[in-house]
Amino acid sequence: MRYRKIPSETIRRLPTYFRALHYSADESKVNISSQDLAESLGLNPWQIRKDFSYFGDFGTPGVGYNIEKLIKHIKKILKLHVVRKAALVGVGNLGSAILTYPGFEVYGFEVAAAFDSNPKKIGKKIEDVTIEAVSKLKTLKRRKINVGIIATPRDVTQEVADMLVEAGVKGILNFSPCRIAVPSKVKVITIDIATDLARLAYYMPSN
Amino acid sequence: MRYRKIPSETIRRLPTYFRALHYSADESKVNISSQDLAESLGLNPWQIRKDFSYFGDFGTPGVGYNIEKLIKHIKKILKLHVVRKAALVGVGNLGSAILTYPGFEVYGFEVAAAFDSNPKKIGKKIEDVTIEAVSKLKTLKRRKINVGIIATPRDVTQEVADMLVEAGVKGILNFSPCRIAVPSKVKVITIDIATDLARLAYYMPSN
Repeated sequence: MRYRKIPSETIRRLPTYFRALHYSADESKVNISSQDLAESLGLNPWQIRKDFSYFGDFGTPGVGYNIEKLIKHIKKILKLHVVRKAALVGVGNLGSAILTYPGFEVYGFEVAAAFDSNPKKIGKKIEDVTIEAVSKLKTLKRRKINVGIIATPRDVTQEVADMLVEAGVKGILNFSPCRIAVPSKVKVITIDIATDLARLAYYMPSN
Repeated sequence: MRYRKIPSETIRRLPTYFRALHYSADESKVNISSQDLAESLGLNPWQIRKDFSYFGDFGTPGVGYNIEKLIKHIKKILKLHVVRKAALVGVGNLGSAILTYPGFEVYGFEVAAAFDSNPKKIGKKIEDVTIEAVSKLKTLKRRKINVGIIATPRDVTQEVADMLVEAGVKGILNFSPCRIAVPSKVKVITIDIATDLARLAYYMPSN
């Protein structure tokens, strides 16, 4: 089945649906209503129905959506069946947390390499990954690693991004709270954990 | 000025606008077009214009939006002028990264306390915050700390959430990739860094 063009805002929500549907499947549920899914995610049911309609799933009235089918659709749209190797740059606190993070596999990602500029860290092993010198970034292409994860201090972020682009990566997940410039063929997603904290503030009483 | 009810999807985007507008202000820009803002964030310009129309800002044709005015609006809507104290539970790699994260202040948050169950960590200091025993969580109310940040292993997440609720927090930022149950008066935002990686996959070539 081919999908019609899906808006980026819907794409943004798909991983969250994917995760919630997995939780429901873990609880041995077979179907889920847009209402229940909406409640667990803090979204509107109509928004969810509209999003799912993009991949031709309109659910069954009175029954809801088949969870397994939805998971399959989302997996296909997000191309999660392709296993992708990612390289982490910057093995400080955040980098170490990323290396030991338990949730990447379900999305088809494997953090396959880690790099740092600190000679004391090079050669050390975290979760089967041996930390390498940043100069080794140029081996990424040969090792078929095409995703970069930046967890460095802010002042070297652009430099590291340039090196990753040079090494042939096609996508960058940037955990430094700053903007980076890359060629348009490289997709960048910047994660600023503080923005989620800011969103939390809106829902809280003023005192 | 009072704002009409703003949809949760718009609220979700406000911190991202806020950050991007700050970057532009840092570059000494005075105005910004919805087109430029859209490009830097990978959103549609009409989406941005619609979001800003909720707080009565329609920009000036041919000039764009005044950056300083937009920042003020968003700050007021998200109540970022209120300084909020947060307590971190779980000082492992991720917790340590959160304690040293440079971006919280701009959103009015201060990580004012940290808790761990490991006796070896208790008493140690990270960035002016001394790690306390989890049993001290009950002091939060007295210390006017009403936000909890959970960065513990998954198997104790619900237990920690219960303790935070018991201690009177009104909002929880959950970094454990699992769902937690809390009373409806407590707002929970769960952050799964892997979902952003999943979104990245969509925009990348299959190989």
